[in-house]
Amino acid sequence: MPMTGVLRPGHAQLRVLDMEESVHFYTNVLGLKETGRDKSGRVYFKAWDERDHNSVILRQADRAGMDFFGFKVESKEVLENLDKALKAYGVTTERMPAGEMMETGERVRFKAPTGHTFELYAEKNHVGNGLGDFAPEAWNPDQKGISPVRMDHALIYGKDIDGTRKLFEEVFGFRVTERVKLEDKTTDLAAFITCSTKAHDLAMVRHGEDDKLHHVSFRLDSWEQVLRAADIMTMNRVSIDIGPTRHGITRGATIYFFDPSGNRLETFCGGYEWYPDMHEITWPVEEVGRAIFYHDRKLNEAFLAVVT
Amino acid sequence: MPMTGVLRPGHAQLRVLDMEESVHFYTNVLGLKETGRDKSGRVYFKAWDERDHNSVILRQADRAGMDFFGFKVESKEVLENLDKALKAYGVTTERMPAGEMMETGERVRFKAPTGHTFELYAEKNHVGNGLGDFAPEAWNPDQKGISPVRMDHALIYGKDIDGTRKLFEEVFGFRVTERVKLEDKTTDLAAFITCSTKAHDLAMVRHGEDDKLHHVSFRLDSWEQVLRAADIMTMNRVSIDIGPTRHGITRGATIYFFDPSGNRLETFCGGYEWYPDMHEITWPVEEVGRAIFYHDRKLNEAFLAVVT
Amino acid sequence: MPMTGVLRPGHAQLRVLDMEESVHFYTNVLGLKETGRDKSGRVYFKAWDERDHNSVILRQADRAGMDFFGFKVESKEVLENLDKALKAYGVTTERMPAGEMMETGERVRFKAPTGHTFELYAEKNHVGNGLGDFAPEAWNPDQKGISPVRMDHALIYGKDIDGTRKLFEEVFGFRVTERVKLEDKTTDLAAFITCSTKAHDLAMVRHGEDDKLHHVSFRLDSWEQVLRAADIMTMNRVSIDIGPTRHGITRGATIYFFDPSGNRLETFCGGYEWYPDMHEITWPVEEVGRAIFYHDRKLNEAFLAVVT
Amino acid sequence: MPMTGVLRPGHAQLRVLDMEESVHFYTNVLGLKETGRDKSGRVYFKAWDERDHNSVILRQADRAGMDFFGFKVESKEVLENLDKALKAYGVTTERMPAGEMMETGERVRFKAPTGHTFELYAEKNHVGNGLGDFAPEAWNPDQKGISPVRMDHALIYGKDIDGTRKLFEEVFGFRVTERVKLEDKTTDLAAFITCSTKAHDLAMVRHGEDDKLHHVSFRLDSWEQVLRAADIMTMNRVSIDIGPTRHGITRGATIYFFDPSGNRLETFCGGYEWYPDMHEITWPVEEVGRAIFYHDRKLNEAFLAVVT
Repeated sequence: MPMTGVLRPGHAQLRVLDMEESVHFYTNVLGLKETGRDKSGRVYFKAWDERDHNSVILRQADRAGMDFFGFKVESKEVLENLDKALKAYGVTTERMPAGEMMETGERVRFKAPTGHTFELYAEKNHVGNGLGDFAPEAWNPDQKGISPVRMDHALIYGKDIDGTRKLFEEVFGFRVTERVKLEDKTTDLAAFITCSTKAHDLAMVRHGEDDKLHHVSFRLDSWEQVLRAADIMTMNRVSIDIGPTRHGITRGATIYFFDPSGNRLETFCGGYEWYPDMHEITWPVEEVGRAIFYHDRKLNEAFLAVVT
Repeated sequence: MPMTGVLRPGHAQLRVLDMEESVHFYTNVLGLKETGRDKSGRVYFKAWDERDHNSVILRQADRAGMDFFGFKVESKEVLENLDKALKAYGVTTERMPAGEMMETGERVRFKAPTGHTFELYAEKNHVGNGLGDFAPEAWNPDQKGISPVRMDHALIYGKDIDGTRKLFEEVFGFRVTERVKLEDKTTDLAAFITCSTKAHDLAMVRHGEDDKLHHVSFRLDSWEQVLRAADIMTMNRVSIDIGPTRHGITRGATIYFFDPSGNRLETFCGGYEWYPDMHEITWPVEEVGRAIFYHDRKLNEAFLAVVT
Repeated sequence: MPMTGVLRPGHAQLRVLDMEESVHFYTNVLGLKETGRDKSGRVYFKAWDERDHNSVILRQADRAGMDFFGFKVESKEVLENLDKALKAYGVTTERMPAGEMMETGERVRFKAPTGHTFELYAEKNHVGNGLGDFAPEAWNPDQKGISPVRMDHALIYGKDIDGTRKLFEEVFGFRVTERVKLEDKTTDLAAFITCSTKAHDLAMVRHGEDDKLHHVSFRLDSWEQVLRAADIMTMNRVSIDIGPTRHGITRGATIYFFDPSGNRLETFCGGYEWYPDMHEITWPVEEVGRAIFYHDRKLNEAFLAVVT
Repeated sequence: MPMTGVLRPGHAQLRVLDMEESVHFYTNVLGLKETGRDKSGRVYFKAWDERDHNSVILRQADRAGMDFFGFKVESKEVLENLDKALKAYGVTTERMPAGEMMETGERVRFKAPTGHTFELYAEKNHVGNGLGDFAPEAWNPDQKGISPVRMDHALIYGKDIDGTRKLFEEVFGFRVTERVKLEDKTTDLAAFITCSTKAHDLAMVRHGEDDKLHHVSFRLDSWEQVLRAADIMTMNRVSIDIGPTRHGITRGATIYFFDPSGNRLETFCGGYEWYPDMHEITWPVEEVGRAIFYHDRKLNEAFLAVVT
């Protein structure tokens, strides 16, 4: 695939209001594996089939939200090149030293036009999925709770989504897969962009306030796993925003729900394989309901209003 | 994703013994869409969710097998560069003129060390999946038979699989995801390689005769679709080689079956998402049964013996 | 199983506002098979795997709703016995002559305490499911639209649900599987009753107006079929009330939706196997949300208000 | 449903060669719950959604096989009546006292013409499924291994299957759902009989030796659970006979596998709902392959030969 050196969404650092309650939730309900805690009190998690040490980091704070979202790149050389490219594009970058985040190498940090902090990094220690690299079994039976396969993408809210989209397109080589257009048929209400064959690795919605998180998303293997996830949410009295249902955009089947601090998360499955020779898909704002919630065909109140 | 300009497996030309019977099979049983016929009598098909004009081409012949397997590349520039790279690697290439294959641009053709003919091309006309690019529905209800989503990969048999693997690695930037090792723990019995985040875009098994096809594979969306495919095969008295079952390699769930000419095909679902920072997986020959057929844990006789 | 001679819900006659539009909907969207039309203009349908001639009958009228709901009984002898038992219980019965409904024998009709008209019958002509009785295939590929397996049950609304429940228990041998209790912990808000090993063959909710239909329900084979049903509803812009989701009561996975006349229908799958030695399940009204919509854990406005 | 007082298959006592190994297998691999051990060393199990104390009892012995298969009946009155009916039919019965089997009332035991020991009982203590009868959750997350919903049926082998079938039909009111006919088109090779709406509660195959067990079967909720079961078998190196596949008879999706003593078990899902007004299905011996293994369309060697 002819793309840049960005591999995938690699980590998200989320702010939570009560660490103990949150660790219980992310471990036993969402079913991530706790992989470590650092001196500053942050707790690190990975999804079962991820091989790197961590993909979700929780930090206790007095308000919910996402501190930053990181992408793993192919190599240290790519990291250096993308840092230069960011600067050439006019973006200020900052270096976070290796080890500042557990088991993770040096990170290049920058602020996107929507106010979100993003990071690039080339190194995170490989801890594996418990199956080994030699004649492995098909999956790891040591799982709790919903137990997604991997952290998959985020949907962010902010003002200048054109600026953030362009930065990812022009500096990192992301490609637009789908857009929702406002009444003027020109302005994007939302854009979905990818650095792989996934229908989206990052998505953004135009919103009056910057640096907001709509959701961080976790991949499940099947629609039956989506039902099981919803059941587990109810058994644990997790606040479900919507679902199980399907998105028109990406075709993925989904549940939106909230962690105990009010951060929206998603568990989903499916979605088409995207290739760069496919035509971009456009949704008019009149169809935004079906675009987002394919069965209800209307947005719920929370979709545009509730972010952290 | 930091890879080369090869997008994906794009087309396979298969030899069939009786065109009428084969068109019935590929249309009504496998459930591809016939998209055209050319002057030489070849019949063109696409899977429903593919956007390009064709992915399977049938040619009547007196013996079954695969004439060639083609990869779509990102652009004409990439095509020219890869042609040069092939020549620099010592591979003779041939140009097939635009239009020689329906709705398809110029192709660069070459023979791999295992004797298989491969092609690269940059252009094939976009005909879409019937849903359009504007506020599309989630899928196209106009489907017949098994109706896979897309043609996905091929497994080829030949002598010098090291040579073919290296060519794809060194010239096209493919990466090895899994291998089966012979008793000497050194020689590859089989290698699985990818140019995307799929667990394989091409696979090869060491075999005494060159230029042989084990199977061409078609993707389904779910394990329930795999069961439905097996049911449809029985209703049509299609010869099933094995399945439904799972592969240990790639984790995909699968059925192997034969077209009326004896060409083995596969319908499958699932398989993990591969990234270039993942460790290569190795299977010893003692575990080849579980590697290939995860539930039976032994090869059936046909696996190593029946090819076209 | 030690029960009475009532086999199952056999037919529902629904009132529709526009027959042509309705025939299109029940044929192409819900995917029933039209099996006949009678002189009075009624149109008859069956689900694909039902063997009897019809299970849904549409009658054009100026308001929507259900004319009557019929149960098939084991034999003409049982029919006579149950007629006598009804009379002995103080219920007036009426005979509908054989042939008044297409391909259907004599029916015993009566009004239940909630004002609903029920029928019993012993004979409806066997037309089969298209697979025959000799070495049949696993299913019939000749299907359109959602294509449920069979008509399964109805949920009715009325005032004296105690009376209707008791009649079905005492005269027909139905058994209560689950109940929702009002705040007084004594009065039933809802009761679910069965004459088989299904979690319900009939359900009833206490309501200020008699003879109301909440929904007629159709069985699907799997949760994936439920998703497919929801997709088909959206493709056809069918009004979806709620779902896909799960019921706490019965555990079934469900979609509620409306036919073009506003009659609520359900497609569902799953639900436990019930046996008469199982304990009755009770839900307090505080848990009615989770009882009905297991994931949302609250009733939507339509559940108690919208009936026909 | 107009049937007799037999509720369902209630318990199977199996002989195992090594109790410790077997308890591990039935607990951690098959995923039943151990519910008790008696003085004679027998170990009792139930499937998670069963409400009675036990459904599988293991007894250590020097050869594998099934000691007896028990059916629960509706009441002690029914038990007395069926005992009398058995005697009137010419069958010798024996009383096993209450408590001889843990938490189980008095049993009526008899030998069927195929030499198998069957039992009837009316009482087994209700221990529930862990969810309670008050506003229960949809399922119990405390599960290990394959974890079937319930023990479902058995397939027995013996000489006089006509005699055993007739006994169950004439004394207990079972009904034939499907048959396989030998070349003479008259003699049954196999018969499937039911006392409920299940496609079979007991099945029998004509065989040269009496009192043989082909398999005891356990119900799963979905085809995805069947795949998961096969995966768990491979992870535990369980001997799989065949599957995942589908039966033509009953339409159920299945895996046959062996416990550590060589007793064949089945995990399956699906199968149609049977009603007594449905036509009996007949399979000629020429189609027995498709009847038993719908996708392979031929019997494997083990099907007719390997029994315990």
